[in-house]
Amino acid sequence: MTDAQTVAGIPMRWVGPLRISGNVATTETQVPIATYESPLWPSVGRGAKVSMLAERGIVATLVDERMTRSVLVEATDAQTALAAARTINARTGELREVVRGSSRFAELIGVRHEITANLLFVRFEFSTGDASGHNMATLASDALLRHLLRTVPGISYGSISGNYCTDKKATAINGILGRGKNVVTELLVPRDVVDGVLHTTAAGIVELNIRKNLLGTLLAGGIRSANAHFANMLLGFYLATGQDAANIVEGSQGVTMAEDRDGDLYFSCTLPNLIVGTVGNGKGLGFVETNLTRLGCRAGCEPGQNARRLAVIAAAAVLCGELSLLAAQTNPGELMRAHVRLERDNKTAKEGS
Amino acid sequence: MTDAQTVAGIPMRWVGPLRISGNVATTETQVPIATYESPLWPSVGRGAKVSMLAERGIVATLVDERMTRSVLVEATDAQTALAAARTINARTGELREVVRGSSRFAELIGVRHEITANLLFVRFEFSTGDASGHNMATLASDALLRHLLRTVPGISYGSISGNYCTDKKATAINGILGRGKNVVTELLVPRDVVDGVLHTTAAGIVELNIRKNLLGTLLAGGIRSANAHFANMLLGFYLATGQDAANIVEGSQGVTMAEDRDGDLYFSCTLPNLIVGTVGNGKGLGFVETNLTRLGCRAGCEPGQNARRLAVIAAAAVLCGELSLLAAQTNPGELMRAHVRLERDNKTAKEGS
Amino acid sequence: MTDAQTVAGIPMRWVGPLRISGNVATTETQVPIATYESPLWPSVGRGAKVSMLAERGIVATLVDERMTRSVLVEATDAQTALAAARTINARTGELREVVRGSSRFAELIGVRHEITANLLFVRFEFSTGDASGHNMATLASDALLRHLLRTVPGISYGSISGNYCTDKKATAINGILGRGKNVVTELLVPRDVVDGVLHTTAAGIVELNIRKNLLGTLLAGGIRSANAHFANMLLGFYLATGQDAANIVEGSQGVTMAEDRDGDLYFSCTLPNLIVGTVGNGKGLGFVETNLTRLGCRAGCEPGQNARRLAVIAAAAVLCGELSLLAAQTNPGELMRAHVRLERDNKTAKEGS
Amino acid sequence: MTDAQTVAGIPMRWVGPLRISGNVATTETQVPIATYESPLWPSVGRGAKVSMLAERGIVATLVDERMTRSVLVEATDAQTALAAARTINARTGELREVVRGSSRFAELIGVRHEITANLLFVRFEFSTGDASGHNMATLASDALLRHLLRTVPGISYGSISGNYCTDKKATAINGILGRGKNVVTELLVPRDVVDGVLHTTAAGIVELNIRKNLLGTLLAGGIRSANAHFANMLLGFYLATGQDAANIVEGSQGVTMAEDRDGDLYFSCTLPNLIVGTVGNGKGLGFVETNLTRLGCRAGCEPGQNARRLAVIAAAAVLCGELSLLAAQTNPGELMRAHVRLERDNKTAKEGS
Repeated sequence: MTDAQTVAGIPMRWVGPLRISGNVATTETQVPIATYESPLWPSVGRGAKVSMLAERGIVATLVDERMTRSVLVEATDAQTALAAARTINARTGELREVVRGSSRFAELIGVRHEITANLLFVRFEFSTGDASGHNMATLASDALLRHLLRTVPGISYGSISGNYCTDKKATAINGILGRGKNVVTELLVPRDVVDGVLHTTAAGIVELNIRKNLLGTLLAGGIRSANAHFANMLLGFYLATGQDAANIVEGSQGVTMAEDRDGDLYFSCTLPNLIVGTVGNGKGLGFVETNLTRLGCRAGCEPGQNARRLAVIAAAAVLCGELSLLAAQTNPGELMRAHVRLERDNKTAKEGS
Repeated sequence: MTDAQTVAGIPMRWVGPLRISGNVATTETQVPIATYESPLWPSVGRGAKVSMLAERGIVATLVDERMTRSVLVEATDAQTALAAARTINARTGELREVVRGSSRFAELIGVRHEITANLLFVRFEFSTGDASGHNMATLASDALLRHLLRTVPGISYGSISGNYCTDKKATAINGILGRGKNVVTELLVPRDVVDGVLHTTAAGIVELNIRKNLLGTLLAGGIRSANAHFANMLLGFYLATGQDAANIVEGSQGVTMAEDRDGDLYFSCTLPNLIVGTVGNGKGLGFVETNLTRLGCRAGCEPGQNARRLAVIAAAAVLCGELSLLAAQTNPGELMRAHVRLERDNKTAKEGS
Repeated sequence: MTDAQTVAGIPMRWVGPLRISGNVATTETQVPIATYESPLWPSVGRGAKVSMLAERGIVATLVDERMTRSVLVEATDAQTALAAARTINARTGELREVVRGSSRFAELIGVRHEITANLLFVRFEFSTGDASGHNMATLASDALLRHLLRTVPGISYGSISGNYCTDKKATAINGILGRGKNVVTELLVPRDVVDGVLHTTAAGIVELNIRKNLLGTLLAGGIRSANAHFANMLLGFYLATGQDAANIVEGSQGVTMAEDRDGDLYFSCTLPNLIVGTVGNGKGLGFVETNLTRLGCRAGCEPGQNARRLAVIAAAAVLCGELSLLAAQTNPGELMRAHVRLERDNKTAKEGS
Repeated sequence: MTDAQTVAGIPMRWVGPLRISGNVATTETQVPIATYESPLWPSVGRGAKVSMLAERGIVATLVDERMTRSVLVEATDAQTALAAARTINARTGELREVVRGSSRFAELIGVRHEITANLLFVRFEFSTGDASGHNMATLASDALLRHLLRTVPGISYGSISGNYCTDKKATAINGILGRGKNVVTELLVPRDVVDGVLHTTAAGIVELNIRKNLLGTLLAGGIRSANAHFANMLLGFYLATGQDAANIVEGSQGVTMAEDRDGDLYFSCTLPNLIVGTVGNGKGLGFVETNLTRLGCRAGCEPGQNARRLAVIAAAAVLCGELSLLAAQTNPGELMRAHVRLERDNKTAKEGS
């Protein structure tokens, strides 16, 4: 009985539609959000509604994409570690071949290193097609590491992962060097929509964003992060689309910016570490397939395009929920009233069913 | 059709049993893990097996518990902000009454504040019984904020949340001031178990922990975190028990420590920000109720005891997966071989079914 | 010859006067700045000039003051560490007596602790009169630690300093828990002064502060810091007044905030970790005595008042330089032209002398 | 009288000699330390003595060197920012020419960028010969920025410095991307020297380093830093050699590592952000010239070699003080006894003089 596999059924709804344009996709689509926190659905829904009232909708710009894994080797001393690092830099062509031998889809696109004492951290960067690429990167790094240990003198095995990757930890390196998709979303909300749908003002959002997201997070001792609740939307979207949702840890490190443009609101969410894929673990499940198909991420197109589309939709969903919550928090008591109302409704719904 | 609610069915297994002792619970129990990453099950399972071979099992010490919410008010100037802060400190008795009026379970147990320019962040700390307490704390803070705005001169509404709380963001404040349950787990693994079950040595684990978890995370620019993959186990356990899994963002900020005690391995995971509850959102679902009951967290005992039990079980599951992965990473190639084997088995299993 | 002591003569100038008001001092005073970077003098000078044109000048509010030292002890296990922490909390009266026995001026005003694995960090907080208090705190902590090791079972010596203090390291803890003087400075600059003296606009400063200080530092992976160059002014002032200038490491972690108030500029610098004293190391030197006297910090008043006065003057000097540099950076090319001109003037001056 | 320039005379002593080898310099030299904290001299002195008892002395490996400045531009939108970034990447040859036109010594060796919302941070990396290079980098960046604003469509001036450089702020970016000299120092201390001179054991140092420097700093919320007091030695050495000592803020972010090698102690300090120069501001002063000459940093050699030599000497001095303090802190009461004795001696010396 112990081994019987069953499922944790997380409540899921489709929210929207929301409108997206930009350098990856132009579309109007609903988004699936799986969550125990039911107020999240109307929150994302309100943002989605706003996106439909903006001419270009949410403009999503994909800035970069790569998956990384850092290995750790011990050298005889720092001088040897430096020599090894230089050797590695000089042999990237050879290393690219090693990677090609380990995977059909992974390609080595960059190498960075850092030396501390006699330890050498080598961070490999890969393109991984439509996969988020954790396993592909680990497999390729395993091959690279074996190759290096065989061919570079004075180094020995430290770890297949040196936490300098960095996976599922909140750090600064991913944002600075890149890991996952880097997506910037922007939405220009006309003044009357700010007023009529969000019940607030551009100036109010701008001020709150400075004080809460930028300053408040800073005072709390945050690292490379300034937002209200990226984690909530990411989690809901990740679970609904078969992603490794533990990647919300670094995925939620992102920045909300707002500007008051003569009463119109310029609103932007930057997610530099969005790890998503349309193939790999979690993707074989029926509802995941259904959801990915409905999102248009099962098209037969060039490798990587489905994952990029999924990334910009994820980022757009994040913007929707972020905008709605910030708008609510500009008004004393609104958040609480909404929560109380929603929970009463839920209770009624349950009792009624 | 848009509004039709359905479920995202995350694969879930019970793993273990694992053995726990300490100041909250003495038990042997299996733990449910819901995840798309199937290698997580045998990983936690191996750690659980080790715990059964240690006399006292995993000793889990609950060090602290509280839930927090910070409000933000704007003052006329810094001097007025300081006067307001002092007023608040002087009136904690009165504020406790305000909280009692807002909730049956929430109790105000502390207040901290910080002033920057003319802005005052006030961080309220509550005990919240068996609930993780997000909503209870927000409701209470809403009442407190309204009370303060009415009775303290020179301040006006800034935000019901100033990100100084901090919820679902990786920061330093939660670890330093406390938020959620603070649980330390310790396991003394006899040398023969280190060798026979973990296929490694105490010295190997110690060295890897220093280089990867402490140093590697530091170099990556981490904040108050030194572990390999707390996030994975937390996510799986949170989803299986109806928790708000976005709290893995701060929950995964914790520290692994290891010592070589004459060949025996002292292994410890400290999770200072473990946010769990046995009542509240997500708890009404059938499988969640079943899981909580099976974990012994539905007992009729004093308020808070079920949540504390859940916290130490969560922390123990984290230790199991952490120990197993670190052990694997001490051996070149082992991680990759395990992944490849598991995925092949999964594929076979699927094809067979 | 090896032991011959001589001096490093750092060029020093008095700049100002600047105007200060607030809860510690109401004064107009010049400030001494010792630096190798001569452009710093006119930079602080321009800010000082602005302060003289504002009715209340720089309003400096002292929010808090304390000096800290954390000791580290090893316990048998986490449970024992927790018991020790509770014992310590229960015996603060006794510990206060121990401190009184170690120093005439130090007083124990708070204790915080954190447990990781079987390690207990205890952070003692002291008031230290007019001394910055490093040595006083260490002496008192040494007495406290000896007392604890003698009277609390199950703990042994770890370190007299556990880096949880934190001295001369950039961390989050000092800002959150307090260390040194916490001073907020505010200056309301009339629109015509913003234009005529600073050659910019309030809106320009506000925008730059958001993008450079708040966002830019965040993206760089900063920790609890958002300013342009607090470190420069602090260093110059610390050297001129006999302070331990290595404390600029944490002292420079502070926040600049700006608001456009109908064209007037509200400008504020918050320095939560300003470590200064008017007695102790460095204070016996002739020029230091002269400088402290000229700053009015050698008055015969209640203990602590001279140090508080010195703190608000230091903070005001920081604001002056910060404001001037930000103003310059709002204008393309201005910074470079100023540097080039100043260096040419310096060269001329040198050649002329 | 206001403008009269005078000097702040910081007490200075030559300490040592210490022994250095490695990829930059092989030498035995004393080092000048200017400080108000007199216990620093014997502390560095003891470490220097240890270095003389190790066969190769302190092995200092220079890993990298560069100076950086980041400019900030505002783009019409993120898409335009991305286009601008790509243009910049494609035109590095042209940009190199622009830099050559602005300076005889600066050379552009790298460009990195990051986009948030519609803002583009561009981080230029330069080699700057024997200068630390602040001004050279700013001058070159000013030229680059003017060139970009003229030739790249859709962008406008944001700031000549976007705090993404990062100068005199504790961040993660400098360590990850490089700024200043990156120097690793290593010292192998024979067991009998650990015992006879340092009065401790290798195991004691290793344990203290893990608990205090790695763990304690982590718990305090530190960023990319694990050491006891790098800041103290850096400040003293910087002041004595005419450096911009405010760069200790990021310079002190470094890592101490220790290993017990069968009773011998492997001890290493890594300083990834050591900003030093032998020409530029502060270098014209008489005592600075004397000190640089005595350190062998006034040789007529290829540009950059003098600065590199200065960097490894600085790093070696840091190791000496770090080792001595850690050794003292392994022994209960030793630090306090040393302080008390030194201050008594100082008092006696003063009274005697």
